[in-house]
Amino acid sequence: MNLSNRINEMKFSPIRKLSPYAQAARKKGLKVLGLNIGQPDIETPPQFMETIKKYDEKVLKYSESRGEAVLLESFIRYYKDYGIEFTEENLIITNGGSEALQFALFSLLNPDEEVLIPEPFYTNYSSFTDIVGCKVRAITTYGDDGFHLPKMETMESLITEKTRAILISSPSNPTGTIYTKEEIRMLADLCLKYDLYLISDEVYREFVYDGLEVHSPMDIPEIEDRVVLIDSISKRYSACGARIGLVASRNKAIIQAMMKLAQSRLCAPTLEQVAAAALYETPKSYFEAVKKEYQERRDILFEGISKIPQVKVKKPTGAFYMMIELPIDNAEDFCMWILEKFSYKNTTIMMAPAEGFYLTKGLGVKEVRLSYCINQEDLSLAVEILKLAIEEYNKK
Amino acid sequence: MNLSNRINEMKFSPIRKLSPYAQAARKKGLKVLGLNIGQPDIETPPQFMETIKKYDEKVLKYSESRGEAVLLESFIRYYKDYGIEFTEENLIITNGGSEALQFALFSLLNPDEEVLIPEPFYTNYSSFTDIVGCKVRAITTYGDDGFHLPKMETMESLITEKTRAILISSPSNPTGTIYTKEEIRMLADLCLKYDLYLISDEVYREFVYDGLEVHSPMDIPEIEDRVVLIDSISKRYSACGARIGLVASRNKAIIQAMMKLAQSRLCAPTLEQVAAAALYETPKSYFEAVKKEYQERRDILFEGISKIPQVKVKKPTGAFYMMIELPIDNAEDFCMWILEKFSYKNTTIMMAPAEGFYLTKGLGVKEVRLSYCINQEDLSLAVEILKLAIEEYNKK
Repeated sequence: MNLSNRINEMKFSPIRKLSPYAQAARKKGLKVLGLNIGQPDIETPPQFMETIKKYDEKVLKYSESRGEAVLLESFIRYYKDYGIEFTEENLIITNGGSEALQFALFSLLNPDEEVLIPEPFYTNYSSFTDIVGCKVRAITTYGDDGFHLPKMETMESLITEKTRAILISSPSNPTGTIYTKEEIRMLADLCLKYDLYLISDEVYREFVYDGLEVHSPMDIPEIEDRVVLIDSISKRYSACGARIGLVASRNKAIIQAMMKLAQSRLCAPTLEQVAAAALYETPKSYFEAVKKEYQERRDILFEGISKIPQVKVKKPTGAFYMMIELPIDNAEDFCMWILEKFSYKNTTIMMAPAEGFYLTKGLGVKEVRLSYCINQEDLSLAVEILKLAIEEYNKK
Repeated sequence: MNLSNRINEMKFSPIRKLSPYAQAARKKGLKVLGLNIGQPDIETPPQFMETIKKYDEKVLKYSESRGEAVLLESFIRYYKDYGIEFTEENLIITNGGSEALQFALFSLLNPDEEVLIPEPFYTNYSSFTDIVGCKVRAITTYGDDGFHLPKMETMESLITEKTRAILISSPSNPTGTIYTKEEIRMLADLCLKYDLYLISDEVYREFVYDGLEVHSPMDIPEIEDRVVLIDSISKRYSACGARIGLVASRNKAIIQAMMKLAQSRLCAPTLEQVAAAALYETPKSYFEAVKKEYQERRDILFEGISKIPQVKVKKPTGAFYMMIELPIDNAEDFCMWILEKFSYKNTTIMMAPAEGFYLTKGLGVKEVRLSYCINQEDLSLAVEILKLAIEEYNKK
C-alpha cells in the first residue's frame, strides 16, 4: 500500500513547518510574534462584508467557471487604472493566486520541460511545479545585489532546449525586490529570442515604497501573447481568506485552454466573488494609509536589523518581506531553538528559515525570511528579541 | 508557442458545452429548462447566510490548511450520526469535492498507474485523472442492469499490475444507482485481494429514495485503511457555490501526504467554512422535505419518460439524475437541434448528451443524462417537450 512517488517527494511547507513549535510556545504562556507568514493584520475594507451581508439569493448557486461577471468587470476596471486593457475573454477567476499558478504551469509546460525561476522564490512555486510535474531551473540571485537578476549572458546560459517559460514575482516574495524597467525588458528580450512564455506574479503590485514604480511585462506589446499574469486580492485588500485570484492573458488560446481546467473544478466561491467585486470601490486613501504603514514598518525592521552585529541585510523596496543573513550556522535550527528555548518579556518570535526558498542545495542555510505584517511596537520588540537570541545562541 | 500536450488533450465539459446554444435560445426569447446540470433549485438552509452575516472579524484571514476547527468538528458530528467515527486527523477540508478527488488521485497513483471506474461516470473524473496524469480503466455498466456492477469475475478481468485504486460514486452521478451491500462487499474483497485503494464519492448520500439505504465502504473495518472518502456540502445543503468539500481517510499516512497538497494551496475559503459548519444544525425536517420533493420529481420524470415510445429507462433510486436511451442516432446532435430548432409553449430543454460520461468509444451515443433539479410543473412540461421533439426530429 504505497502512496504515489510524487506525493512522497513533495515537501511540507517550510513556512508552516515550525507551527508545532510555536503552538508549544503558546501553550507555555508565551506570546509568539509571527514574522514567518504573509498574513496582513490590516483591516479588510468594510465593503467586502457589507456586500456579503446584502446578498439575498435564496440558493447559493455555482458561479460561472470563468467567474462572476461582476467580478470580471471589476478586475477589468482595476487594470484599466494601471493602463492595462483586458476584456472578459482575457480573464479567469481562480481559487487564489495558487490555482492561477497551477493553471498556467499545467497549460504551458509538459512534464519534462523547464521553467526558469529566480531564487530565492516563494516556496509553493516548487509545490506547484511538483504537482504539475515540470522542472524548475533556478536563476540564482544574491542578497548583495539586492536580489536583482543577473545579466543577460548568465540568464542565457541557463536556457536549454527544454526551457518553456520564466516565472517571476515582482514585487517579490520572499525578497521584497522590485525588478527595474530594464530587467523586465531583458526578460521580454529573452522570451522573444528563445520563444518562451513569461508568467508574472503581481499579487504585491500595490506594496511598493520609496516612490518606486512597478513594471509589468503586460506593458510590453511585443510579448503580449507570451505573458500570463497571476493576481490575487489576498494581499491587496487584506483578504487572504477569500481565496480569490485571477489568471490573465492576451493570448486567447492560453485562456481557452485554461478554461478546461476551470470547468473541471466548476467555479470559485460565489459569495466571495460578489464581495470581491465591491473592493474595486476601495478609496485611494486606503492604499495610501496601508502603504505608509508598511513603509514605516519596513524602516523600523530594517534599521533595527541593520544594528544587530554581523547580520547582513539590504533594504527591500516592495512587498512585506525581508531576507536577512544571520551570523548562525543553521538558521532552521536557530528558528526552532528560539521557539523552544528563548523568550524575552514573555515573548518569542517565529521566522521562516530561508533554505526552503532556494532550489540550489546549500544556499540560504544562514538566511531567514521576515515578514512585517505585525504592528510597529511588536516589530520593535521582535528585533530586540532577535538581537538577544543571536547573542545567547552564539554563547552556546 | 505551443501549449502543453496534456491541456491540448483535455476535453471541455460535455455538461457545459451546449451552453452557447442555450444562450442563443434565451436570446430568441425562449425559456430554457435546464435538465443538464446538477444545480439544485432547493433553498440553501438559512443558517448559512445567517452565520455569515454574524461574522465580525476585522481581517479576513487565511484559514488553517486542514480547515477551520469549527467545520472539522461539524463534519465529525455529521459522520457520527451515520455511525462513522472520525477525528480531526482523518479529515481535510477542500475546495469542493473536485479538489478532494484531485488530492486523492494525486496521492495514490503514479502517472502510469490505473484507477478502475464504473462507466458511465461523472465527466470530471476524466478531467481529474487527466490533470493528475493517471489512467482510467472503465468497468462498463448497462442501463438494462440498472447500471449495477458486473460480477466479481468481470471485475477481476479488468485488474492489471498497474491497477492501484477503484473509484465509485454511490448514489451515482450520472446514473442515480445506489450500490447494494453485496456490491460494496465485493469491492472490499477486490481491494483486499489485489491490494487496492477504494475512493468513495458520497456527495449524494442523502438523496436516496424508496426507503433504500446507502452503504459506505467506510463501514467495513477490514478495508478502513484503504478507503478514501470524498464529500461535499454542495448537493446536501444546496450550497454548490460555497465550494466546500472534504477528503477523509482512517489511513493517517494518506491524510498526512495530502496535507502537503493542502498546504500548497494554503486553505479553503474561511467565511464559507464558518458558515458551512452551521449547516450541521439543519433540522431533519429539511432533509425529509427535500427527499420527498426529489422523489416526487423522479416519479414525474420517470413516469413521463416511460410513456414516450421507444425510450429506454429504468427507475433510478438515488441522486437526482436519470440516464435514458433515445430512439435517436446521435443524442448530441439531437440536444443541439432542440436548443436551436425546437420549442413548445415558448420553451425548450437543455440535456446532457451521455457520450462524454463513457470512456469506451461508441457507448452512450444514443443516451442523455437528465437531472431533476427543476420544479414539478416545469419537469412535466420538459417531458412533453422531449416527447414532441423526438417525434418532430424523427420525421426529418
